[in-house]
Amino acid sequence: MKSGSTTTEAPSASAECAHCCPRYHEAVELVGKRWTGAILYVLLHGGRMRFTEIAHAVPDLSDRLLSERMKELESRGIVERHVSDGTPTRVSYELTAKGRELAPAMAELKTWADRWLD
Amino acid sequence: MKSGSTTTEAPSASAECAHCCPRYHEAVELVGKRWTGAILYVLLHGGRMRFTEIAHAVPDLSDRLLSERMKELESRGIVERHVSDGTPTRVSYELTAKGRELAPAMAELKTWADRWLD
Repeated sequence: MKSGSTTTEAPSASAECAHCCPRYHEAVELVGKRWTGAILYVLLHGGRMRFTEIAHAVPDLSDRLLSERMKELESRGIVERHVSDGTPTRVSYELTAKGRELAPAMAELKTWADRWLD
Repeated sequence: MKSGSTTTEAPSASAECAHCCPRYHEAVELVGKRWTGAILYVLLHGGRMRFTEIAHAVPDLSDRLLSERMKELESRGIVERHVSDGTPTRVSYELTAKGRELAPAMAELKTWADRWLD
């Protein structure tokens, strides 16, 4: 609290209650990071996918940036990385339970996009 | 379609269906732009707010960047800018119908954040 401030405009009552929730902020910055939303959408609909399949499903995204995003999502527990036995080894990615539970938020955003964006 | 490509790994059936929807991608990049999600959250709960009230409700965001984001949201038809009669004039901001309809997506993301983030 700032004591001694000389504010001439009292905030409205509703504005007093409106504060950004830190957890929500963290979530929106995480999911909204450039390309991350698209990657999550693709994994939600595609199930377990190989790197090249994800790259194919999200055009315009470079392999370097996709690789960076997959590492971030793995480190946040949203994506799980699988390495198969056998030769050659195959690496695939899949949403964890934490990642799959983003589905309702993504579905609502999709509904909004279909209604409001051209 | 790339003819003549020598892919040795056929994509899985589910991966074939998983493609990022351009409208969804646009929506997530719009809402997920740095600080935009927080500003929308605050406006959704605060109703019509003045610039200083929004700035107060989203700490750590500079006035310069907040001003830039408000202009972007206004140009996308998500926020409406009101200028009051009288002296001094007062400028306030409010979500449009398009902006308010982001509420379900934001609510779902908040639910996810409360469950999964510390």
